[in-house]
Amino acid sequence: MNYIDNRVENLKFAYIGGGSRNWAWGLMSDLAVAKDICGTIYLYDIDFEAAKHNEQIGNGIEESDWKYVAVKTIDEALDGADFVIISILPGTFDDMESDVHLPEQYGIYQSVGDTTGPGGVVRALRTLPMFETIAKEIEKHCPDSWVINYTNPMTVCTDVLYRTFPKIKAFGCCHEVFGTQTLLAKMLDEKLGIKGVKREEIRSDVIGVNHFTWLTSAQYNNMDLFPIYREFAEEHRENGYDYMLDIEHINNAWRHLEKVKFDLFLRYGYIAAAGDRHLAEFCPGSWYLDNPDQVWDWGFGLTPVSWRKDDLKSRLERAERLISGEEKFKISPTGEEGVNQIRALLGLKDLVTNVNIPNVGQVPNLPLGAVVETNATFRANSLKPVFADGVPKEIYPLISRISGGQQLLVDAIVERDIDKAFLVFANDPLTRLPLNKARELFDRMIANTSKYLGMYNIKK
Amino acid sequence: MNYIDNRVENLKFAYIGGGSRNWAWGLMSDLAVAKDICGTIYLYDIDFEAAKHNEQIGNGIEESDWKYVAVKTIDEALDGADFVIISILPGTFDDMESDVHLPEQYGIYQSVGDTTGPGGVVRALRTLPMFETIAKEIEKHCPDSWVINYTNPMTVCTDVLYRTFPKIKAFGCCHEVFGTQTLLAKMLDEKLGIKGVKREEIRSDVIGVNHFTWLTSAQYNNMDLFPIYREFAEEHRENGYDYMLDIEHINNAWRHLEKVKFDLFLRYGYIAAAGDRHLAEFCPGSWYLDNPDQVWDWGFGLTPVSWRKDDLKSRLERAERLISGEEKFKISPTGEEGVNQIRALLGLKDLVTNVNIPNVGQVPNLPLGAVVETNATFRANSLKPVFADGVPKEIYPLISRISGGQQLLVDAIVERDIDKAFLVFANDPLTRLPLNKARELFDRMIANTSKYLGMYNIKK
Amino acid sequence: MNYIDNRVENLKFAYIGGGSRNWAWGLMSDLAVAKDICGTIYLYDIDFEAAKHNEQIGNGIEESDWKYVAVKTIDEALDGADFVIISILPGTFDDMESDVHLPEQYGIYQSVGDTTGPGGVVRALRTLPMFETIAKEIEKHCPDSWVINYTNPMTVCTDVLYRTFPKIKAFGCCHEVFGTQTLLAKMLDEKLGIKGVKREEIRSDVIGVNHFTWLTSAQYNNMDLFPIYREFAEEHRENGYDYMLDIEHINNAWRHLEKVKFDLFLRYGYIAAAGDRHLAEFCPGSWYLDNPDQVWDWGFGLTPVSWRKDDLKSRLERAERLISGEEKFKISPTGEEGVNQIRALLGLKDLVTNVNIPNVGQVPNLPLGAVVETNATFRANSLKPVFADGVPKEIYPLISRISGGQQLLVDAIVERDIDKAFLVFANDPLTRLPLNKARELFDRMIANTSKYLGMYNIKK
Amino acid sequence: MNYIDNRVENLKFAYIGGGSRNWAWGLMSDLAVAKDICGTIYLYDIDFEAAKHNEQIGNGIEESDWKYVAVKTIDEALDGADFVIISILPGTFDDMESDVHLPEQYGIYQSVGDTTGPGGVVRALRTLPMFETIAKEIEKHCPDSWVINYTNPMTVCTDVLYRTFPKIKAFGCCHEVFGTQTLLAKMLDEKLGIKGVKREEIRSDVIGVNHFTWLTSAQYNNMDLFPIYREFAEEHRENGYDYMLDIEHINNAWRHLEKVKFDLFLRYGYIAAAGDRHLAEFCPGSWYLDNPDQVWDWGFGLTPVSWRKDDLKSRLERAERLISGEEKFKISPTGEEGVNQIRALLGLKDLVTNVNIPNVGQVPNLPLGAVVETNATFRANSLKPVFADGVPKEIYPLISRISGGQQLLVDAIVERDIDKAFLVFANDPLTRLPLNKARELFDRMIANTSKYLGMYNIKK
Repeated sequence: MNYIDNRVENLKFAYIGGGSRNWAWGLMSDLAVAKDICGTIYLYDIDFEAAKHNEQIGNGIEESDWKYVAVKTIDEALDGADFVIISILPGTFDDMESDVHLPEQYGIYQSVGDTTGPGGVVRALRTLPMFETIAKEIEKHCPDSWVINYTNPMTVCTDVLYRTFPKIKAFGCCHEVFGTQTLLAKMLDEKLGIKGVKREEIRSDVIGVNHFTWLTSAQYNNMDLFPIYREFAEEHRENGYDYMLDIEHINNAWRHLEKVKFDLFLRYGYIAAAGDRHLAEFCPGSWYLDNPDQVWDWGFGLTPVSWRKDDLKSRLERAERLISGEEKFKISPTGEEGVNQIRALLGLKDLVTNVNIPNVGQVPNLPLGAVVETNATFRANSLKPVFADGVPKEIYPLISRISGGQQLLVDAIVERDIDKAFLVFANDPLTRLPLNKARELFDRMIANTSKYLGMYNIKK
Repeated sequence: MNYIDNRVENLKFAYIGGGSRNWAWGLMSDLAVAKDICGTIYLYDIDFEAAKHNEQIGNGIEESDWKYVAVKTIDEALDGADFVIISILPGTFDDMESDVHLPEQYGIYQSVGDTTGPGGVVRALRTLPMFETIAKEIEKHCPDSWVINYTNPMTVCTDVLYRTFPKIKAFGCCHEVFGTQTLLAKMLDEKLGIKGVKREEIRSDVIGVNHFTWLTSAQYNNMDLFPIYREFAEEHRENGYDYMLDIEHINNAWRHLEKVKFDLFLRYGYIAAAGDRHLAEFCPGSWYLDNPDQVWDWGFGLTPVSWRKDDLKSRLERAERLISGEEKFKISPTGEEGVNQIRALLGLKDLVTNVNIPNVGQVPNLPLGAVVETNATFRANSLKPVFADGVPKEIYPLISRISGGQQLLVDAIVERDIDKAFLVFANDPLTRLPLNKARELFDRMIANTSKYLGMYNIKK
Repeated sequence: MNYIDNRVENLKFAYIGGGSRNWAWGLMSDLAVAKDICGTIYLYDIDFEAAKHNEQIGNGIEESDWKYVAVKTIDEALDGADFVIISILPGTFDDMESDVHLPEQYGIYQSVGDTTGPGGVVRALRTLPMFETIAKEIEKHCPDSWVINYTNPMTVCTDVLYRTFPKIKAFGCCHEVFGTQTLLAKMLDEKLGIKGVKREEIRSDVIGVNHFTWLTSAQYNNMDLFPIYREFAEEHRENGYDYMLDIEHINNAWRHLEKVKFDLFLRYGYIAAAGDRHLAEFCPGSWYLDNPDQVWDWGFGLTPVSWRKDDLKSRLERAERLISGEEKFKISPTGEEGVNQIRALLGLKDLVTNVNIPNVGQVPNLPLGAVVETNATFRANSLKPVFADGVPKEIYPLISRISGGQQLLVDAIVERDIDKAFLVFANDPLTRLPLNKARELFDRMIANTSKYLGMYNIKK
Repeated sequence: MNYIDNRVENLKFAYIGGGSRNWAWGLMSDLAVAKDICGTIYLYDIDFEAAKHNEQIGNGIEESDWKYVAVKTIDEALDGADFVIISILPGTFDDMESDVHLPEQYGIYQSVGDTTGPGGVVRALRTLPMFETIAKEIEKHCPDSWVINYTNPMTVCTDVLYRTFPKIKAFGCCHEVFGTQTLLAKMLDEKLGIKGVKREEIRSDVIGVNHFTWLTSAQYNNMDLFPIYREFAEEHRENGYDYMLDIEHINNAWRHLEKVKFDLFLRYGYIAAAGDRHLAEFCPGSWYLDNPDQVWDWGFGLTPVSWRKDDLKSRLERAERLISGEEKFKISPTGEEGVNQIRALLGLKDLVTNVNIPNVGQVPNLPLGAVVETNATFRANSLKPVFADGVPKEIYPLISRISGGQQLLVDAIVERDIDKAFLVFANDPLTRLPLNKARELFDRMIANTSKYLGMYNIKK
């Protein structure tokens, strides 16, 4: 790369999972408007066709200074990369069908099923060995690159990168906290008539694990937002807050009226900062996910995998239109911070934001080494966690159990110890089954995705 | 006190709950055979008659060099005491009836109901304010005394002593680990034909919280007992180990065949070191306490409060016989370590054993200040925890959740914040209820014991 | 205060030591150009005349939107203040004469004498009781204000603010690291021909205690500056780097050719980030301050108090000219970050910079509670340390001794224990005296400034 | 080994440095009276003759059940050893002559010169590579053995064993604390007329590094010894305490009147627990070791190496007499705890005593991994540190500097980085030289012992 007049040119990015029809397009859009950086994105995907399509789409964006190149090997993508982006889908939606819906036969409902709960555990078993491979390739080809992970289950994927290659400069990136900041900005309008506040103007301290992150403070200018949020939560606890209903894709599958978020705040005193569909999955299963009626009452949706399949179909159709030129690629900033983080790491601007990295002591009362979500400073070639104090006592029992379980799960996978993985499965807040039933479900779920699990010694 | 020829005379003990018909008699027995210490025990009890009866019983023991004096005020008991023993029953068995059995209406079964679970939480609400009072009196009357607590819920009772009077020299004492050491001694006989091993000869490292303590190592001479225990557990996992069946009081109410203990070991790799009735209550409720049939299959009993009432009746009858002289007090060492700990604190002998004290850093990955159970050294006027490393990763998710909940519970009680106590109640591994149902049960249980809860601001 | 269109108006500042002829003028200058904040500065000084003069000078600055008001009581200054600035001179230059020069009779040379060494200890004895008073007044009048301390000895002054009022929102501010960043910018010009780099563009990680702060990394864009600095240091180790010679006030008294800085880097591998006059005072006295000849060889100056007296005289003359209008106040940015920090705390912009605050865990291997210098994030009403890892092993022995001594000194002063203060004095790296000689010097220095030390129980 | 009726037979010991004429004989004596253990001691020494002599001496002890066998290779000694004892003399007394006396030419006096100070650093450079070799051999031949180190410099020797073979079960053993306990027992006689107290009956909490260990409490029965020691120290601070003068070997070379110990207590409030000759070396050189007159005034001796040479001569003569039978080996217990520690590790008896092992968290405010001296429990195959709290603030600056320096020294040696070793040398409390002079001395000392330093890359 070169620095010319506050602009960085000739950057090399490797995009692992470069055939993505979702994150990839968002990144293309965000890069197109970042005028102070440019370079080439090498798209690598086990589905080379998909990468090739994205090459065409990316290179067709008029506003963009970036070049996209689909490559057939991960080596080509990684060699000399300055940044590596990982957003892969481990397995197919058929595998995910088992992850999400088979537990329903045992009375276990999952609103997302890719992060935690039975589905998250099995997805991790499938995904983490791939991440081990990726980490080894990064060590070989571009050990000094910055590695940005968007793949779920975020926490354990990021963790295993560090376990495999301890000097990796990786972090996990997620937009859920930003959604909560947006909610707070809307609240400022509703409660105080303050309009046009950008989500970045809501400064917050965050602590937790990805998708179960909590704000321990939120501030706008010199205003402490917690007392206002208390009133706001009390007003909306009954019927929820429906600002998202007007957004196109919000149907039942993605429904969330923030009632879980309000309930958690009114009981715990801290703002849970992810969508309700995620938050519910980290709590004891009887609270919000006991059965579909209860879920409906709490105002959020159980996203069925069929919805994802339909959604994928429509994205594939769009891909065709984009390639054929029938549809023009429309630049629309995603609200993600990936590109800003990249700019900060290049030294163009300091940035303080939340991120997922191993706990080196920034959260003194969670296990060292566990990947946690806290604020961090992004500066020239430097990513440092902001000291976050301990997890507040009110939410410590909820979070320590999850974080400890995640570490144990990574142990299990690294050691290829399927029985150890079952310890996490059985003790998951959603599982709530007698041990024999839990094991039966676990074994069936594993059998359903067994073609990805050859590295484990699974007794038949 | 005076030291004369390796003997300590004129000791003054205060016994809070001195009307006890259980622990008190055990202590009398143990003191009677401890020939290198003697003095006076001041028995204080809100039931003065009961204390008076124990005065008569204690003074009637021929073998004993100790004098027993029932006193009407706690001041008389504490003034100038060298040691304070606390073993009280907070509330009556009718209160306990609600603690243990009302949750059954909601599908929650408790095998003990005095330590954790819904019953443990409510018992703590009742008991801890009494312990605050006791701590304040100790600060006033005998701040340098050593304070030994036998009362359940052990962990939080001991915790609140330190919260109230931070310089208190208190510790919680429990025999559950000794029972496990005894089991290991029996194993040595069964597996290797080694007979007559005393439980003190089994050296173990322990970590956890009371009644959910785990051995991370166990050694006899130069022999690592873990591999042997693995075989032993595998042999008995199906049908359990029935050595306790020959002990008189083992009927269904106290039944425990060690099947829970074996199951936990075979899955987690560490030896859970309390009776199965206790262990089960700290695990997710679906594992061992889902319903009475499952409990029966796991080989342990649900102790009904009716059993305790009957038992008390027979002990009251025995008290009468002891006072009238109809029955002679029989000295039989309890196997408790209380008297040995006292002797060590007096400087007569060093002792290393397990004990419940606040975490000052001996367990680096549990919250500082939380009361934990680890080994400690007892020496002349000194009690120091042995550094216990962190809780092993396998069991960290189970224990951190419990320990964090206990700290939160003490916060709630110290702050008289009933809603905060509900956070612990709702997140208890046994509770497994939707939030509205959990709250309904909580409120009913509180109402049933409300006469002890005047200090809380309970909304009606 | 009010927020109007990204501007904050009606701010209230309290300036303790508001008669200052140095820092105060710098602040006036920096505030004059900060167009997005304005309000009133209340100047309080035990020398009311001096404050009054500054009121006149401040209000006479044409470019400034700020109003200056001299007040007679600290209450008037603090009541409702949003920010409090503390820059006081404890005692007179005659007192400082004893601090700096009396030790010379014992072979102890000090290049500054206000931070550490014998002079720093005695200055602390004089100053910290004043800071206790200030902290108490802040607790009473404006407990939520942000408090910025510029007074030396910085570390212990800031520490005692927290000891006295633990919830104070105070931090210590110092420009020494910025000077080192400036040196690195000059290096980029000299070594690589890169011109015009601003010191803020040099991103660095810092660790240590004020005036003995070390850079553990320095980065410009994607460039690691350490290898370049190694060459640079080797080239200049012999004759020093003389870029500062062209700055007006650099005469022998302030001379520093960076030779100490280069020597420390070449031996320790980290960049000591303060002026050589400061750095030398924290090292064993024999290294750089053994005698005046050695000091001269190392290329820095021993600043005599006579120089300070002359300098003060000329500043007093300038004050007169500014008041009379004979001289016009010239706006010239100081390069300090105080105003930027204030703007960040008001939420106008995020800032990451180095600062002095208590160690809550950001430096895991220095004592908790000790004031340390590390990076921190300044955001809306929030100051959080960036996690700084441990002090590198190479410099840990140097820094832990100093930091521990500073904590002990604050203990001594808070407890009014003059013998405890002597422990620090005797063990200071510069002292190097037999104990009886050290005590003799200590007692003489204390006698010289005894009128400020009435609160200590000093044996005559 | 076998356990027969509370006796352990067929133990195998490896004695590295088995030709020793000092520690070896002490061990022989202690083993001879330990009737519950027996076995064979394999004596390995680079001086095979010396080992052979000890074989003869050991086997000639009538009272002893132990067999001694001199072996020519370390493999023979270590293969299958249950215990390994290391007590070697690295280099000769001629090397030590340079360590101790060359610094005197630079005004640096050392009373011992084998632990710290210039002599300790150079001795470490010579010794630690040997310990790396020993650790590797232990890993190969007897990884599960317990390893007892008696060699100085104790702390860094023990440290490097762990650096080389992290799972080693090693500890460093030293009698200095016992000497202080003996002094306290004498004090009980002098001050209170209590006679016959054994040093084991003085229970103490200890913290620090070997030879600079401090008692933070001392207790006899229920008696806190600190107030009594304060009186005692005040009474003897002027003229010292001369109880050791009657012991045969106390001449000027070993003289210590405890005046340093009393001075440190009266200033710091904790009991420094080693001989004055050791304590003085860890303090700033100007305090007690400024010059021979000052040393004399403080009542202790500078042990010249000539004395050691003479002493060795007489011990060699004694060896001859023992071998020839002219002199009968006299059993006299050494007061060392080695044999008791061995018995405890075999499970024969629990023991709590002070020991040197890596800091795993038992001293929270010293670096993790640094070897520290604290209490520990010795039990069946288990050695666990007792949690020791932090180093008290008063002595933290003294100890943290030393401990950090020791860690840095081990780094330097492991990395074979002679310049890094100089960092420790130059910053040693005794050194007090300008950097050029310090380096000159360092280089000369290294040159004098260069034949042992071939593994370092020393510039000529």
